[in-house]
Amino acid sequence: MKTVNKPRLAIDMDDVIADSMTLILNKYNKEYNTNLSKNDLHGKTIYDLIPTEHIPAIKHYQNTRGFYKDVPLIPQANHAIPELTTKYDIFIVSAALEFPNSLPDRFDFIGDHFPMIPWNNIVFCGNKQIVKADYIIDDMLENINSYSTKGFLFSAYHNIGIEHENRVEDWEHAIKLLEFIK
Amino acid sequence: MKTVNKPRLAIDMDDVIADSMTLILNKYNKEYNTNLSKNDLHGKTIYDLIPTEHIPAIKHYQNTRGFYKDVPLIPQANHAIPELTTKYDIFIVSAALEFPNSLPDRFDFIGDHFPMIPWNNIVFCGNKQIVKADYIIDDMLENINSYSTKGFLFSAYHNIGIEHENRVEDWEHAIKLLEFIK
Repeated sequence: MKTVNKPRLAIDMDDVIADSMTLILNKYNKEYNTNLSKNDLHGKTIYDLIPTEHIPAIKHYQNTRGFYKDVPLIPQANHAIPELTTKYDIFIVSAALEFPNSLPDRFDFIGDHFPMIPWNNIVFCGNKQIVKADYIIDDMLENINSYSTKGFLFSAYHNIGIEHENRVEDWEHAIKLLEFIK
Repeated sequence: MKTVNKPRLAIDMDDVIADSMTLILNKYNKEYNTNLSKNDLHGKTIYDLIPTEHIPAIKHYQNTRGFYKDVPLIPQANHAIPELTTKYDIFIVSAALEFPNSLPDRFDFIGDHFPMIPWNNIVFCGNKQIVKADYIIDDMLENINSYSTKGFLFSAYHNIGIEHENRVEDWEHAIKLLEFIK
């Protein structure tokens, strides 16, 4: 059902609804015979942890067609988003243009797990400054700051330690906070 | 060079910088042994012209990986856009999410013909209402009207006959008009 009068909520993809880092770590651990986990990434990105010469491999995974097909869901995202659609016009907004070959897989992931999100409500971009929304949920502070409206920082391994007035710990917490916005 | 203070100009893709309709007509004519050209499409879309049962074929072409690789340029777009980057922060904004398998090819097309447009300045969406720009150039009136800012209607076969106060006939005309905006 088309509902144009709801406030628009832009929801990020990687580390917010899609657990891309688990996918990347699994592949990296297999290829380099390591045993890295998200626990090693508190307050860091994977690029802080691996040898510089391995960075192109990480980028390559993310731009390989098919790689993103097996990305796991972030817990509860598939319960929270249908619930939030009753109050918000939800757009999935992913700055995934750095990895153009992942776009068809990302599209399929959204369709498979969030069939209530129509394709019209998907945005793949490079710079979120261009997106107009009333509220956003994103794990990257720079993305939140590039919107002019209220942003919720979704907790992820790499943003632990960053102070933010609207941090949401997980999708259950997000629902509680977003229900009370008038 | 990153220039954040220029006004943002959102430029559409199909029938504005990429001559997608020529590509589609060539494929359709070959498959159905017809001889349709853009001259047959004045004031119409291809869907007005072909039997209803052929519509899925047209949609299928557009969502086939590789199909978009051979899309021709709209004349002068490759000269106009580098010139306009001196005055505008240009984003290519394509509502191409209906055809997700075309996205990697579209990305390559932009990179090949417009290397001055960084990947950060590409947006693939479904609904242009979500895009924030100062000016837009688009061949679809509904897209122009969904932005809140000044839009230029780029002349295309299907929009002949629509009255618009800011119609641009071609890229030479677009440059002339856009140079004079203060």
